Amino acid sequence: MVYGSVIKVLGNLLLIEAALMIPPLLVSLYYNGADKLAFITSIILTSMMGFIMSKSFEFSKSIKAREGLTIVAFGWIFASFFGSLPFIFSGSIPSWIDAFFETVSGFTTTGATIIDNVEVLPKGILFWRSFTHWIGGMGILVFTIAILPTLGVGGFQIFKVESPGPRPDRIAPRIKDTAKILYTTYIVITIVQVIMLLLGRMSFYDAMVHTFGTVGTGGFSVNNASVGAYNSTYIHLVIGTFMILSGINFSLYYSLFKGKWKEIIKNEELKLYLGIILTAVLLITLNINKDIYHNFWLSLRDAYFQVGSIITTTGYATVDFDKWPTFSKTILFSLMFVGGCAGSTGGGMKNIRILVLLKLVKREISKIFHPRAVIPIKIGDRVLPNEVVAGITSFFMLYILIFILGTIFISLEGIDFESSAGAVAATLGNIGPGLGLVGPSRTYSQFSYASKLLLSLFMLMGRLELFTIIALFAPSVWKNEILSKK
Amino acid sequence: MVYGSVIKVLGNLLLIEAALMIPPLLVSLYYNGADKLAFITSIILTSMMGFIMSKSFEFSKSIKAREGLTIVAFGWIFASFFGSLPFIFSGSIPSWIDAFFETVSGFTTTGATIIDNVEVLPKGILFWRSFTHWIGGMGILVFTIAILPTLGVGGFQIFKVESPGPRPDRIAPRIKDTAKILYTTYIVITIVQVIMLLLGRMSFYDAMVHTFGTVGTGGFSVNNASVGAYNSTYIHLVIGTFMILSGINFSLYYSLFKGKWKEIIKNEELKLYLGIILTAVLLITLNINKDIYHNFWLSLRDAYFQVGSIITTTGYATVDFDKWPTFSKTILFSLMFVGGCAGSTGGGMKNIRILVLLKLVKREISKIFHPRAVIPIKIGDRVLPNEVVAGITSFFMLYILIFILGTIFISLEGIDFESSAGAVAATLGNIGPGLGLVGPSRTYSQFSYASKLLLSLFMLMGRLELFTIIALFAPSVWKNEILSKK
Repeated sequence: MVYGSVIKVLGNLLLIEAALMIPPLLVSLYYNGADKLAFITSIILTSMMGFIMSKSFEFSKSIKAREGLTIVAFGWIFASFFGSLPFIFSGSIPSWIDAFFETVSGFTTTGATIIDNVEVLPKGILFWRSFTHWIGGMGILVFTIAILPTLGVGGFQIFKVESPGPRPDRIAPRIKDTAKILYTTYIVITIVQVIMLLLGRMSFYDAMVHTFGTVGTGGFSVNNASVGAYNSTYIHLVIGTFMILSGINFSLYYSLFKGKWKEIIKNEELKLYLGIILTAVLLITLNINKDIYHNFWLSLRDAYFQVGSIITTTGYATVDFDKWPTFSKTILFSLMFVGGCAGSTGGGMKNIRILVLLKLVKREISKIFHPRAVIPIKIGDRVLPNEVVAGITSFFMLYILIFILGTIFISLEGIDFESSAGAVAATLGNIGPGLGLVGPSRTYSQFSYASKLLLSLFMLMGRLELFTIIALFAPSVWKNEILSKK
Repeated sequence: MVYGSVIKVLGNLLLIEAALMIPPLLVSLYYNGADKLAFITSIILTSMMGFIMSKSFEFSKSIKAREGLTIVAFGWIFASFFGSLPFIFSGSIPSWIDAFFETVSGFTTTGATIIDNVEVLPKGILFWRSFTHWIGGMGILVFTIAILPTLGVGGFQIFKVESPGPRPDRIAPRIKDTAKILYTTYIVITIVQVIMLLLGRMSFYDAMVHTFGTVGTGGFSVNNASVGAYNSTYIHLVIGTFMILSGINFSLYYSLFKGKWKEIIKNEELKLYLGIILTAVLLITLNINKDIYHNFWLSLRDAYFQVGSIITTTGYATVDFDKWPTFSKTILFSLMFVGGCAGSTGGGMKNIRILVLLKLVKREISKIFHPRAVIPIKIGDRVLPNEVVAGITSFFMLYILIFILGTIFISLEGIDFESSAGAVAATLGNIGPGLGLVGPSRTYSQFSYASKLLLSLFMLMGRLELFTIIALFAPSVWKNEILSKK
C-alpha cells in the first residue's frame, strides 16, 4: 500500500469538501441563521486537516487497484465524518453517531434520517444536508477527478470503484473528460428541474433542496411530510419524473445530446428499467384503487410517484405507502433491490445486473434441451466476458447474503421481521424509508447506536458496490507498507 | 417428444403407486377404519389407469432429456392427483384442490397442511399421508428405476432430474444399482429410527408415521401439536437427530458402510451444513434463553429441534417458534433457504450450492487485488466446470426470483408481508410451516384455491429443482410429436 499517495488524495478531497460547505454557509448568512458559526468552524477544521494531509505527502508511485479502493472507501468515510461537523457544531444533531449516520445517508444518497422533526432545523443546515445528496450522487471522487489534475493513471481505478454499476462507460478517452461530461449533464438536469419547480410556485430554497434530493436520488426533504407537503399534482409529477430520469444512465443523455438516438432506443437496460416501472405502476394503481382510493387517476398519480421514488432509490414520499395493501408494499419492497440503471445516481443492484441474471436463467432453461450448446450472454451486440458475468452473479449473491445477515442482526433490536428487513433493504439499496417501523412516516432515530453504525456501513456498501468496503477487511490491502513521506 | 414412452413409464408409475396404497389399506383394515373402501376404490382406479397407460404403448425410442423431464414433472403431478383419491373418497378432505395440495405437500416432503384438526381423521388416511413423505423423500421415480428394468439409458436422465442438488453422485456404475443402494440405506435408517422411537415408548403406529415424516424430511404429524405432543426429551432428541441425519447426502452413509472415513471427514458440504446448524443452534439458544426460557438446557433442546427441523426442511415443531423473538425467527427463516445437503431428502437450495456461491464471492474479492488471476472453483479436489457453476448461480437467481414474485402474488390474499414471504419460502423450500399466519400452530386452510394451486406449484418446483417445472412451459418440450402407439 502506498500510503503517501492515498493520504494526499484524501487531503485534496477534504479541501474540496471544505469548499463545498461554502454554499450552505452563504444560505445561512442570507437567512441570518444560528448555524453560521457551525459552518465557519467546520470549514476551517476541514480545510486545515485537508491542507496538512495534502501537503505532507507527495505521489511516489502510480495508484493501483489497492490504492484506488482505499482512497474511495476512506474518502467516503472521511467526507462523512467531516461533513457531519456542521450538524454537531450547530446543535442540530447533538450525537456524533447520529450526525455520522445522517451524513453517510446524505452522501450515499440514501435519505434515511434520524431527525424526527426536520422543520425546526436552520435553513443552512438543511441545505447542506440535501447538498450532500447532490455531491454524493455523481460521486465525490468523480468530482475530484474532474477538477484536479493530479491523479493520472489512478483516476480510472477510482472512477470505476465509485461509479454505480458493474463497469462504467468511458464516454471520452480521458477519464477526466468523462467525469467533466457527466458533471455537466448533471448540472444541466439540476438547473432544468429547479426551473420546473419554480414554475410550480415552489420557493427557490425548497426547489433547490428538493432538486438536490431528486437528481442525486437521495430523498432528504425539508418537510416532515416529505413531498406530500406540497398539495400540487404538478409538483408531484415534476419530482416523480425527474426521479425516474435520474435513474437512467447519464451517458445516455450525452448520446441524446450527440443525436445518437439508436443508442438510446437499443439500450436493453433502459427497456428493462422502464418496463419494470410501467408494470409496477400499473399493478399498484389497480391494487390501491380497488382497496383504498376508488379513484383511478389519483391512484395512478400516487403509484407513479412512489414507484419512481423507490426504484430509483430516492425515497421521497407523497403518501404513507406503509399503509397500502401488502401486495403493493411487496412490489415496492422488491423494487428496492432493483434500483436504477448503471451510471445513474440511483442505488440498488442496478437494472443491468438484473438483466444479465435474467439472461443467465434463460440460458440455463435452454441448456436443458441443448446441453452442449455454448450460448454467450450478450448485452446489445456485445458479448459479456465470463469474468464480468461471474462478477455480477457474485455481486447478487453477496447482496442477498448481506441483506440476510443484516436483517438477522438488526432484528436484535426487538422489532418485527418486516421492519428489520425493510431497514436493511432500504439502507443497503440507498433508498431511505423502508417498511413498518422505518416506513415513510417514521425515522431511524429509534435504533441503538450499534445498529446505526451497522446501517451506516450498509449505506456505504450499497453506494460503493459492496466489494469496495468488504475488500478493506482483506489482509492483502494492508501489505507492503511503504510510507512515502516528503 | 416421444409420447408413447412417456405415457408407458407414467403408467408403470401409477401401478407402483397403487401397490404403495396397500400398506395404508392394511392399516385401515387392522384398525377397522371407515377409510377401507376409500383405499380399495383408489387402488382399483389407480391401477386400472396405470394398466391402460402402460399397455397401450411401447418404447419406440430411447428416453432423452426432454422425455426424462416430462416423465418426472408429469409423474409427480399424476402421482399427486391419484394419491389424493383416498383423501377425497374417505371424506377426510372433501375439496379436490385441498386434497391435491395435501398430497403434493406429502410427496414433495413439504408437510404444509390444510387440515385444521388432524386428530379426527382415520388412521389409514394419516398413515398414507405420512407414507407419501417417505415415498417422495427418496424420489418416486428413483423407486421406479430401482425396481423396473424397462428404462435403460433414460434412467440416468430421470434420476438426475429427480435427485436433489446440482448433480447426483453415481455410487454404482449402473443407475439401477445406485438407486437400489440409496433405497437400502433409506430403509435401514427408517428401521433404526422406528426402533429408537419404540424404545422411547412411542406406539408402533406413531413411531412409523413420525419416522416417515422424519427420514423423508416431510413433517406431517398425527398430532395437532406436532412432535410437541410428546412430552419426552428423549423423543425430541431422537427425532431432532434423525432429521439432521436425513439432511446429509445419503451416499456418505454408503461411504461409512464401506469404511471410507476420509470421504466423510473431507466432505466440504457436510462441514458447512453442520457448521450452519451449530451456529444457528447456539445463537437461537442464547436469544430464547435470554428473552423467554431463562433455562439454558431447555433453550438448547428446543433450539436444536427447531433448527434441525427447519434446515432439513422437515417442519416438525415442538414449540410455536412463531412466538420467538424476531432474531431467532429471522435465523430460522434464513435456514429455510439453505436446506439440506445434495443427495439427501432435504429441500431448500442445498448446502452445496451455498458453498459454491460463497466460494464465488470469495474469488471475486481476491480478484479485486489480482484482476488477472484465474482462480478455479473447487469442491474438495475437484474443479467445478464453468457450466456447473453457471447452473448453480442461475438456480440461485431463479429461486430468489420465484420467491419474490410468489410473495407478491400470495400477498394478494390480504395477509401481512411476513406471512406471505413465509408461505412462499416454506412451500418453495419444502419446509411446511412458515411464519405468522402460516406458523407452526396454523395451517394453509385459510388460503384461496388459486393460492393453494400456486403454492402446490411452488412445492413441486422446490422438490424438482425449479427448472424441471419451468421447462414444461418452454415450447420446445412440445415439438416433434411422434405418437408411438402399439
